[in-house]
Amino acid sequence: MQEFTKFPTKTGRRSLSRSISQSSTDSYSSAASYTDSSDDEVSPREKQQTNSKGSSNFCVKNIKQAEFGRREIEIAEQDMSALISLRKRAQGEKPLAGAKIVGCTHITAQTAVLIETLCALGAQCRWSACNIYSTQNEVAAALAEAGVAVFAWKGESEDDFWWCIDRCVNMDGWQANMILDDGGDLTHWVYKKYPNVFKKIRGIVEESVTGVHRLYQLSKAGKLCVPAMNVNDSVTKQKFDNLYCCRESILDGLKRTTDVMFGGKQVVVCGYGEVGKGCCAALKALGAIVYITEIDPICALQACMDGFRVVKLNEVIRQVDVVITCTGNKNVVTREHLDRMKNSCIVCNMGHSNTEIDVTSLRTPELTWERVRSQVDHVIWPDGKRVVLLAEGRLLNLSCSTVPTFVLSITATTQALALIELYNAPEGRYKQDVYLLPKKMDEYVASLHLPSFDAHLTELTDDQAKYLGLNKNGPFKPNYYR
Amino acid sequence: MQEFTKFPTKTGRRSLSRSISQSSTDSYSSAASYTDSSDDEVSPREKQQTNSKGSSNFCVKNIKQAEFGRREIEIAEQDMSALISLRKRAQGEKPLAGAKIVGCTHITAQTAVLIETLCALGAQCRWSACNIYSTQNEVAAALAEAGVAVFAWKGESEDDFWWCIDRCVNMDGWQANMILDDGGDLTHWVYKKYPNVFKKIRGIVEESVTGVHRLYQLSKAGKLCVPAMNVNDSVTKQKFDNLYCCRESILDGLKRTTDVMFGGKQVVVCGYGEVGKGCCAALKALGAIVYITEIDPICALQACMDGFRVVKLNEVIRQVDVVITCTGNKNVVTREHLDRMKNSCIVCNMGHSNTEIDVTSLRTPELTWERVRSQVDHVIWPDGKRVVLLAEGRLLNLSCSTVPTFVLSITATTQALALIELYNAPEGRYKQDVYLLPKKMDEYVASLHLPSFDAHLTELTDDQAKYLGLNKNGPFKPNYYR
Amino acid sequence: MQEFTKFPTKTGRRSLSRSISQSSTDSYSSAASYTDSSDDEVSPREKQQTNSKGSSNFCVKNIKQAEFGRREIEIAEQDMSALISLRKRAQGEKPLAGAKIVGCTHITAQTAVLIETLCALGAQCRWSACNIYSTQNEVAAALAEAGVAVFAWKGESEDDFWWCIDRCVNMDGWQANMILDDGGDLTHWVYKKYPNVFKKIRGIVEESVTGVHRLYQLSKAGKLCVPAMNVNDSVTKQKFDNLYCCRESILDGLKRTTDVMFGGKQVVVCGYGEVGKGCCAALKALGAIVYITEIDPICALQACMDGFRVVKLNEVIRQVDVVITCTGNKNVVTREHLDRMKNSCIVCNMGHSNTEIDVTSLRTPELTWERVRSQVDHVIWPDGKRVVLLAEGRLLNLSCSTVPTFVLSITATTQALALIELYNAPEGRYKQDVYLLPKKMDEYVASLHLPSFDAHLTELTDDQAKYLGLNKNGPFKPNYYR
Amino acid sequence: MQEFTKFPTKTGRRSLSRSISQSSTDSYSSAASYTDSSDDEVSPREKQQTNSKGSSNFCVKNIKQAEFGRREIEIAEQDMSALISLRKRAQGEKPLAGAKIVGCTHITAQTAVLIETLCALGAQCRWSACNIYSTQNEVAAALAEAGVAVFAWKGESEDDFWWCIDRCVNMDGWQANMILDDGGDLTHWVYKKYPNVFKKIRGIVEESVTGVHRLYQLSKAGKLCVPAMNVNDSVTKQKFDNLYCCRESILDGLKRTTDVMFGGKQVVVCGYGEVGKGCCAALKALGAIVYITEIDPICALQACMDGFRVVKLNEVIRQVDVVITCTGNKNVVTREHLDRMKNSCIVCNMGHSNTEIDVTSLRTPELTWERVRSQVDHVIWPDGKRVVLLAEGRLLNLSCSTVPTFVLSITATTQALALIELYNAPEGRYKQDVYLLPKKMDEYVASLHLPSFDAHLTELTDDQAKYLGLNKNGPFKPNYYR
Repeated sequence: MQEFTKFPTKTGRRSLSRSISQSSTDSYSSAASYTDSSDDEVSPREKQQTNSKGSSNFCVKNIKQAEFGRREIEIAEQDMSALISLRKRAQGEKPLAGAKIVGCTHITAQTAVLIETLCALGAQCRWSACNIYSTQNEVAAALAEAGVAVFAWKGESEDDFWWCIDRCVNMDGWQANMILDDGGDLTHWVYKKYPNVFKKIRGIVEESVTGVHRLYQLSKAGKLCVPAMNVNDSVTKQKFDNLYCCRESILDGLKRTTDVMFGGKQVVVCGYGEVGKGCCAALKALGAIVYITEIDPICALQACMDGFRVVKLNEVIRQVDVVITCTGNKNVVTREHLDRMKNSCIVCNMGHSNTEIDVTSLRTPELTWERVRSQVDHVIWPDGKRVVLLAEGRLLNLSCSTVPTFVLSITATTQALALIELYNAPEGRYKQDVYLLPKKMDEYVASLHLPSFDAHLTELTDDQAKYLGLNKNGPFKPNYYR
Repeated sequence: MQEFTKFPTKTGRRSLSRSISQSSTDSYSSAASYTDSSDDEVSPREKQQTNSKGSSNFCVKNIKQAEFGRREIEIAEQDMSALISLRKRAQGEKPLAGAKIVGCTHITAQTAVLIETLCALGAQCRWSACNIYSTQNEVAAALAEAGVAVFAWKGESEDDFWWCIDRCVNMDGWQANMILDDGGDLTHWVYKKYPNVFKKIRGIVEESVTGVHRLYQLSKAGKLCVPAMNVNDSVTKQKFDNLYCCRESILDGLKRTTDVMFGGKQVVVCGYGEVGKGCCAALKALGAIVYITEIDPICALQACMDGFRVVKLNEVIRQVDVVITCTGNKNVVTREHLDRMKNSCIVCNMGHSNTEIDVTSLRTPELTWERVRSQVDHVIWPDGKRVVLLAEGRLLNLSCSTVPTFVLSITATTQALALIELYNAPEGRYKQDVYLLPKKMDEYVASLHLPSFDAHLTELTDDQAKYLGLNKNGPFKPNYYR
Repeated sequence: MQEFTKFPTKTGRRSLSRSISQSSTDSYSSAASYTDSSDDEVSPREKQQTNSKGSSNFCVKNIKQAEFGRREIEIAEQDMSALISLRKRAQGEKPLAGAKIVGCTHITAQTAVLIETLCALGAQCRWSACNIYSTQNEVAAALAEAGVAVFAWKGESEDDFWWCIDRCVNMDGWQANMILDDGGDLTHWVYKKYPNVFKKIRGIVEESVTGVHRLYQLSKAGKLCVPAMNVNDSVTKQKFDNLYCCRESILDGLKRTTDVMFGGKQVVVCGYGEVGKGCCAALKALGAIVYITEIDPICALQACMDGFRVVKLNEVIRQVDVVITCTGNKNVVTREHLDRMKNSCIVCNMGHSNTEIDVTSLRTPELTWERVRSQVDHVIWPDGKRVVLLAEGRLLNLSCSTVPTFVLSITATTQALALIELYNAPEGRYKQDVYLLPKKMDEYVASLHLPSFDAHLTELTDDQAKYLGLNKNGPFKPNYYR
Repeated sequence: MQEFTKFPTKTGRRSLSRSISQSSTDSYSSAASYTDSSDDEVSPREKQQTNSKGSSNFCVKNIKQAEFGRREIEIAEQDMSALISLRKRAQGEKPLAGAKIVGCTHITAQTAVLIETLCALGAQCRWSACNIYSTQNEVAAALAEAGVAVFAWKGESEDDFWWCIDRCVNMDGWQANMILDDGGDLTHWVYKKYPNVFKKIRGIVEESVTGVHRLYQLSKAGKLCVPAMNVNDSVTKQKFDNLYCCRESILDGLKRTTDVMFGGKQVVVCGYGEVGKGCCAALKALGAIVYITEIDPICALQACMDGFRVVKLNEVIRQVDVVITCTGNKNVVTREHLDRMKNSCIVCNMGHSNTEIDVTSLRTPELTWERVRSQVDHVIWPDGKRVVLLAEGRLLNLSCSTVPTFVLSITATTQALALIELYNAPEGRYKQDVYLLPKKMDEYVASLHLPSFDAHLTELTDDQAKYLGLNKNGPFKPNYYR
């Protein structure tokens, strides 16, 4: 019932990038409430809308929300200075001049900053949503108003979803030469419907675990016909998303849902990979007493050295106040565990989709479910014991907290650089295979984010570079570094 | 621009006890939304309501909300086990049998647990609200349904406010012999309108800074005609409310309003008293770089030893990402400081009411205010610079975060014990003066909260007690300890 | 078996001020080895020595060591900049002009900086040692060479001890008007032998718990015939010595004696007063898992909120790797506990003299003692189990670690200011009683130490001072603050 | 002036394994003083010594010290329970039966535990020292007394060194079939003098960076004629040695040499690789204010997220109290930097041998060097400014602190397992190349160390293992994991 470092990382991540849209529309954003008030039931596909320049080359919920969306984008820009700085540095040479990018991602303020950066660097873009719920309508409107061909709204039907993707790919007089995908649906659609498009495509940039997995399968099967860049496994993304993101979001997710006091709480964290390490660091720092369960002796030994007791779940399940899963595994918390928890115990999942806690086992007649708040259920045993289940066992940070824009900025910058690299690579540098971002570009992404912290990098002297056998401008890490 | 330990503590605290009601009704509580949907505009004073037992000895918004309120009370009870345990221990002997308590406090789920504890110990209670906005209507309904004479609703007028107090005090055939007050308004009303009531009153228990201040003034002027217990300055309350509460709420307040990432942020905290210490500990633990300003050399030296740079605000104002005031002082952050902040700097107040940041100075024509979320304003300079002002400079934890029920439990338990002590004290133990809770009862409050943590206290042996010159059951601290 | 905040503080402190001399002579100091090489067995009392200016108004081990002592003093001066700065500020006005101070303290490099500061401010000084072992001979030599009438050496006999004190007090043509004492022996001697001297004495400054205790007894008995200043309980001393000093010295003491790895170690700390808090903070930070025992519910609740399990010693005694006592109590660790410890368990005391661990119970025939290093004994059970006992249960920081000069600087500065205050106080300000240092001088001591940290204090504006009801220059704390 | 992760790790490590012998003989060990008292100047090579069983198949300083050495070994065994447990588990099957191991390592109590484990598993061993100074004479004596053919003493000449190695290899009637080397000198000697021996050798196990480097060169040149196992780069060693070891030793090294107080000190750490991360974590936890310099943007970004300011050395050099290098680079601290440091600034090196601080630049006529303690020099500028240089710029943890036996246990266990693996591997599993330890054995090493922490590993269910695509017994990490 434990941690497998590789898995939770990626799926955790994918979900995280979704959560920003949900939380910012759900809770405090006034823009969100604007969206909600659109009790307008007409399908966007049936509406006639034009932006202020007279174009109707888009399909969004309500073009009139553009102004509100613009403000959300501007707020996001403040924490995405790496992309803004990339715009400035590369604007003169327009490294994406001639690029025709078709994209399929969550459509949020952060993605908008990415799309507008690509445009500023010379690209033309057509965009659809990779998830039927995650579009921020007002942001889509702002993009449409700014001239981006965006086809997306919150609450698409399955049919709408593929219609939007199709509208991006299938356009007279315009043929994509780059793909930016998140989940592989766009790539799948092109393979299935417009295989000829691949003749012009210079490369695919894919962010998600699932999409990357599909690409590797294609590659193995010899069916990958263009180079692809695996952005998900880039060093910068891996190193920062899990540890630091979870350090921030575990507290936020628990507080927003339960108002729990952390001081003195006994918490068991299942899994001490990067996600677990981030959760534990934050909880310990706020005064919780944390126990760890692990299957992997190396992670277990790290937990020991970091000052945590490593136990089996059964040893502490009766005494803990909070149970958090971060394993990437399934059925880590079983009905038997749930039966033994004490009254008011909080149970939540920071790891793999929704398999870690055996929620299904709780849907039995003798247990009563009571929804006490959004995302918070009390599951009530016959003797009156209540277990507090968050987000029905789905990812807590997906459902109940936000992801810092800064972290999303790292991913977006990596995507932009991957597109530039693939688009400009000399013939032969990349074959029909899946590639990781060159270490040097990883380091460039990192360096673009340092000014946010007013951090000043030291430069090697010629003499030192020679001594270390390194180029003064990097890469500084060996290629196998991760 | 600094910390004055004594002030912020108390006022900070008073506001905190208010915030629970606001935040839990504002954001996630489904009960709250129920309340909000009561677009019923008839004044409660004009309604005819009876509870299920046929009594109409109360005045609340809507008695039908009782069931929802009961659930909120039950949830609160889970984190207030000290009071529940007090109920059990003292239920046999009914130490408040015969007590007729008139109370005036915030009316929240937590207060309800206190009131029902007092009833369980034998008291009769009549209750009104100490704040026109802070009543949780459904909780008031639940109390009324349970037979408590409660007169309170959210959104009272000034006239309603005093009318409710009067209804509590002025009743044929029932005369109060104990007062529990929060703010001094009830005490004031009795002094002014029904001075004869004091002939029967055995004591006043007062929680707030303001109320305690008024009592000391009465005492100085020789006008205090009954003993009063100053609960605000009890050790348990002081030691736990500020440090631990702020450690939890600073992160929560910032996150809910701005989704800011803490890692690597440069933060200046003005004032290193208990409130400042709590804020700094949490922020440092989450990876922020924290600077301190102080006027008091002793607190400054502590900050140094704790690993913080002590600076003047001017030295860092241009570089910081967040400014937090915790001083109890006024105009700590001036317009001049605000003019020099960088774009996107977040400014908020954890200290004294709303004087610490000179918000008034921002209400000038050249600056534009933009409300971007509830409790979040962008103040925009002519050059486009935005400063992010939270809660318009009022207390952040009042407005934008919650207070753990556990902390409120400490206060409520202290109030209950103070009532028991004053009610049962032999003649002559207390004169017409203001008293602090005896150290031993402070320790008893603490001990009642230990089981929540499964903490096991050690007992002195006879030999050890003799060696230390202590009674085995305490008190363990000298009386001057604080 | 627990913590009593008041006691360990003081005695802990007193011992700490001794330890500097021992540790710095014991381990690394080259000066120390010089001292040790003086296998000269002639009693200093029988030697004829003169300093380079021809004076023989002193009695030390070997005047020729003066140069080495001077270097030690210079090193100490670097961390005692508050005294140096006091010298500079007060040198013009010579606030101790005319003062004839007789002193009896540990004679270490740090004391030497104090004595030479007093001289620089105008005083004449005669000095003896308050402990027969703690004198740094080379420092005494340096003082003698500089003209101070010092009578002290390492390894005095009981008779030597009183002879030295007598030589300080009893001198033709010189009569003391101030006393600086550490332990009360000097004061006692004057009371007994030269009561007339008190006619000229303007005041006594006393640092130790024991000495202060004696003074309070004298005062109670109506026998205190001059004002006395209790330096031990000054805020600055209390706030810094225990928490911060122990945070540093617990790690140092354990490492130097046992080379133990802290990561993952299970440690139980008995007592969560200031000493315990300091130990726990350091151990937790280095990756140890810490349990607490407490008798006092308030301290226990703090331990809970700080993230420590509060247990009875018996619950964890079989599993822990290290046991540390910080209680001020006696027999906290009993033979029964020792019998149940696991093999290799380390036991040490940071609290009260040598009573906390029942070491006597280990001196039984069935147990074998093996001295494995200086200050480290293995106590071996018949079954081969070994318990590692440090410093035979005496204070660990006394015996096995050093105290930062910076902390000693705070005490020395407080002593100097207390002398200045008593010497210059207008008639009638102080009666024949024991006083605490005025809060304002406490704050002055703190402020003199801020420049070491390059810390910049903020000043109140007139308006703010008025608002807070404070003087711009302090005191900022109420008098009852501690 | 920065960090290059790869280098300092290894060299840091190599030195660390040396330091244990030095520190334990230098400072507190009573055994050490025994050794020192052997002012016996006769070369061991000229002595006739026999152990109690009449054997003289060894050459050590003084066989009579065996008893003291045995005690040191027993103390070490207490913290090396993984090896003891390995002895027990594998003792029945004697996996090294028939193995004839020739070894060349530091000869310390910890190595002795390894050697005696190898013997218990069935091996015959002949052993020499890899360093002319690092032998603990009493440990060598204990080994000789126990029947191990050991040839080593503290203070060998160059000629002695090679003579000892030769005596191990070149023995009638005994031919080695395994090599355990630390530094490559033994391997070099066999290559040069007895190449035929390699016909029987089944494998080489090498621990040091230098030795591994030589092996890779041999391999590249096609001259490696047996399989070799690179123990230095095993996951367990890398993950634990640097981060956790440095976290412990930086405080110890600074305290033992300078007694510096950490609270409030401003420290700059050059390099934020694993070594730097360990140092920073410890210093921050003890209240220091830490700045980082970095050349690598990824490490720099981690430093930011962890709450450290990233600066160029010049920006802070005038204000810091301590400078620590952890870069693996050279001339990171230059004379120019040293010229600008403030008085009393402490400078030390935790990284690469002795190149990081340009110590040579300080050996100029205008600067005065003063040795104030062992390993501590004051370098004095003409204006009186002193810089405190530790260990003349060599590794601080080599010279001035100890390494926890527990960490050495990880390395020793890895060496034992590598020997077992190579000795028992079926023909063909390993070719004439350099190998890393299989991940599964890395995990086994970790699991052997968990009982020290009473840590309980969780086991995968069949279902979970299938879901994750893993074997229930591991390996759990992908092979590329590091």
